[in-house]
Amino acid sequence: MVVPDKSILKNLEPEVAAINAALVDNLQTHVPLIAEVGRHILLSGGKRIRPLLFILSARMCGCQGNHLTGFSTMFEYLHAATLLHDDVIDASSVRRGASTANTIWGNQAVILVGDFLLAKALSLAVTTDKLKILQVLSHATTMMAEGEILQLLHAGNLKISEAEYFEVITRKTAILMAAACRIGAILGEVPPGQEEALSQMGMNLGITFQVVDDILDYAGDARELGKEVCADLREGRVTLPLIYALAQASPPDRERLAAIAQALTPELAPELRGLLDKYGSLDYARTVARSYTLKALENLETFPPSQEKTYFWAITEELLARTH
Amino acid sequence: MVVPDKSILKNLEPEVAAINAALVDNLQTHVPLIAEVGRHILLSGGKRIRPLLFILSARMCGCQGNHLTGFSTMFEYLHAATLLHDDVIDASSVRRGASTANTIWGNQAVILVGDFLLAKALSLAVTTDKLKILQVLSHATTMMAEGEILQLLHAGNLKISEAEYFEVITRKTAILMAAACRIGAILGEVPPGQEEALSQMGMNLGITFQVVDDILDYAGDARELGKEVCADLREGRVTLPLIYALAQASPPDRERLAAIAQALTPELAPELRGLLDKYGSLDYARTVARSYTLKALENLETFPPSQEKTYFWAITEELLARTH
Repeated sequence: MVVPDKSILKNLEPEVAAINAALVDNLQTHVPLIAEVGRHILLSGGKRIRPLLFILSARMCGCQGNHLTGFSTMFEYLHAATLLHDDVIDASSVRRGASTANTIWGNQAVILVGDFLLAKALSLAVTTDKLKILQVLSHATTMMAEGEILQLLHAGNLKISEAEYFEVITRKTAILMAAACRIGAILGEVPPGQEEALSQMGMNLGITFQVVDDILDYAGDARELGKEVCADLREGRVTLPLIYALAQASPPDRERLAAIAQALTPELAPELRGLLDKYGSLDYARTVARSYTLKALENLETFPPSQEKTYFWAITEELLARTH
Repeated sequence: MVVPDKSILKNLEPEVAAINAALVDNLQTHVPLIAEVGRHILLSGGKRIRPLLFILSARMCGCQGNHLTGFSTMFEYLHAATLLHDDVIDASSVRRGASTANTIWGNQAVILVGDFLLAKALSLAVTTDKLKILQVLSHATTMMAEGEILQLLHAGNLKISEAEYFEVITRKTAILMAAACRIGAILGEVPPGQEEALSQMGMNLGITFQVVDDILDYAGDARELGKEVCADLREGRVTLPLIYALAQASPPDRERLAAIAQALTPELAPELRGLLDKYGSLDYARTVARSYTLKALENLETFPPSQEKTYFWAITEELLARTH
């Protein structure tokens, strides 16, 4: 296994700058408020991981050209739409260290701008002139909504199984990254096996991404994350580290974990963290995340060496190692 | 001008029954709650006007077959998605005489089921295998979100002009009816002139529909409507009858109208109605609605006589004459 050097990701900075410019350009609307809310959610941070996965997939499959940047915004718009609706649903006030759009403009406008961005994403998919791309993206959008609803139904459910957890994160997070990679492959018109391999790679990277996100919610630095630690649990999301700890804990520890989870205060966070560590929950989750990156790297093996492949290796490492 | 007989619309009952069955069939989902909320909003009434416009357009353009019923559900799903989000935004508790979904399942689930139905509508559009249909539908969806946001921005705005009012209703209501008719024409592969005429007819019927809706909000029977009278104004929507009355009223009457509009109670409703009648506002709005039906009938003139054309005539009359 080649150990990729994350520092090469700096070479993608021009791509990220071009994506950021296209995100603003493509936000053409008749209603200034939409552009305002849109810019707030789109430009207040974000790593553009979905547009980059798409652009690199397309290029690795032989499709070049600046038009990729424009197309790539569909994934970020769709992602932003779900962030806006998520923030309304969770009544969140802070995202990436800034006030959420719902705090500034109210739930009503934010729900509707989410709808606008969702529609805009699908409108952009139409401009690719490929029906199959629409099929992949509208299917992903449907599955994402299902994933969000599953997550809502599991809110506060301390009995959620690992399988159910993976079902939720596959739908709510991984499916869009899989779609970004698959759609890149479709534009490159590669054989079905390679298209499938890239889609699987996106799926595995998406699962890695979400598992790491869920680890950081317990182990990250609040300032670096731009949100409070344990914010997910406070909003009722029972994620892999806690699921594992609950399964492994002695009966009294399990009872204590459940009690803390149901009424979490900042004062209780260190005790919760202590119990998670006692059962090696964060290490377990890191091992799981690592296993998905290995699968992602395996998916890449169908492809001959290329610069894009090197970037994918580096992104895989970066997703695993990120601290925010 | 032929005076159409509304009673022939009874002949469309089998179509409506087939649409209702398809609405349930196509609501395949992995998550039972989605189907439950979906059935609640879809089957608690509704005239299926959008699916019918689509089916009749397609047939009049020479496209026959049972597959039209399945396709037709995309328009009802998209419409239902906007109803769900509207009810969350307006915090409505009653629609069509029944409790709203947000009252039963909460805002969070309802926002997400709205997203699901929106995505489902676009997924169904993909099954037509025609990219142009996706283009029309995703564009309409974008414009609908813009229309809803414009409406929100005009909430409580007693200075809204007639032009601004028409802009809102064109986007939030008429564009989807225009899309239903245009997409029927696209399936029928008629020449561009006929496609455009049918789209315009849908647009004109949509404007008629909304103006009549806005008249009924003042003049309708609460029980028949399944909601309180003046519900729109209470939610801040200043519509054609009030816009006209404000423009025509003497300064003291205008002041009184504004005062009532800003703090409307059920006790003040008769006084408001009296002022609207004093300036002939409802008659004015009816005249406007009638003028759009005449435009719709004109749009139909490009088409040779057919059973579908007769149905369109009858629908036009029905939309104008409806009392709920």
